[in-house]
Amino acid sequence: MKIYGDIQSGNCYKIKLLASLLNIEHDWIHLDILKDETHTIEFLVKNPNAKIPVLELDDGRCISESNAILNYLASGTEFLSSDPFEYSKIQQWQFFEQYSHEPFIAVARFIAKYLHLPDDRKAEYESKQEGGHKALQVMEQQLRKTPYLTGNKFTTADISLYGYTHVADEGGFDLNEYPAIMLWIGRIQSQPKYIGME
Amino acid sequence: MKIYGDIQSGNCYKIKLLASLLNIEHDWIHLDILKDETHTIEFLVKNPNAKIPVLELDDGRCISESNAILNYLASGTEFLSSDPFEYSKIQQWQFFEQYSHEPFIAVARFIAKYLHLPDDRKAEYESKQEGGHKALQVMEQQLRKTPYLTGNKFTTADISLYGYTHVADEGGFDLNEYPAIMLWIGRIQSQPKYIGME
Repeated sequence: MKIYGDIQSGNCYKIKLLASLLNIEHDWIHLDILKDETHTIEFLVKNPNAKIPVLELDDGRCISESNAILNYLASGTEFLSSDPFEYSKIQQWQFFEQYSHEPFIAVARFIAKYLHLPDDRKAEYESKQEGGHKALQVMEQQLRKTPYLTGNKFTTADISLYGYTHVADEGGFDLNEYPAIMLWIGRIQSQPKYIGME
Repeated sequence: MKIYGDIQSGNCYKIKLLASLLNIEHDWIHLDILKDETHTIEFLVKNPNAKIPVLELDDGRCISESNAILNYLASGTEFLSSDPFEYSKIQQWQFFEQYSHEPFIAVARFIAKYLHLPDDRKAEYESKQEGGHKALQVMEQQLRKTPYLTGNKFTTADISLYGYTHVADEGGFDLNEYPAIMLWIGRIQSQPKYIGME
């Protein structure tokens, strides 16, 4: 299989991390968003929404959206539950990530790390702080009760949230305010076959 | 089971629609977001992220995030596939909905319909138009090829996207530009046990 992505993007890194944990052989094809490489005619056939990551199977079928790809790759493994309630709780955290976490933490990080906090985006950067902290508080509250987001098991929900949380400091979020999140990050980093972002 | 929601919210209406299509008996508990009714101590135990809809099972366990609730309720029914590829494509559309569709179309509709387009939010309203049309174009392209978003079957992916798409005109989006979407809306509205938003 092929994975189209940019390892600097938390959404793409999620896939790289799960592929490593599961020993999934794949070709990694690097695309540069800042050079508009997701807007070529060739790529738009794979994902008309012009976003990475995209997973392309050997028969040519494609899946986009990082969390949908994670759940596909994790099907039948210890990282996903086939119990409807447990699977829905994994998805609950993943939808939370895309709606209430990523638009604040990943965007603040992008403005700070890649655009170097230009004057005309400072107000936007500042506006992302409150929502980002709110998302971290929701995670902190859960992780004080259970070692992983959905309970005792390390699932794709944790991989989804880990992607941008572990680099949230690059968006101006001080994780020392969140001791349960720090412990959870350590738990993930000590997994066999864990790989970092860069 | 209990469903906490506001029928005027597309995210809540999705659940109401699936519950009707599947004849799921439930108590509907109306909460008013504008009156902060999702921020009571009682409700925050059910969803620390303070959002509706929330599904509460008879044993007290709760699920939040509209699309996670849909997939839980549809488990084992014709609206969901247990094939890993098909299920991941359903999720792909649902993550697309939460990240690339809802933040534009639902927010524009909220500003226009509920806040009556006040001067201080006109710029934000205008800024939502381009992203909303981009999302509609992605849907249109798929629906020119297949009757439903993931192929020939009506799934929870369609219910997820239908929620805000069928009222997109209330956010200033003229759906007459999208003939395949219009046909798809008609297909959904002719389902047995279909119910509208109000």
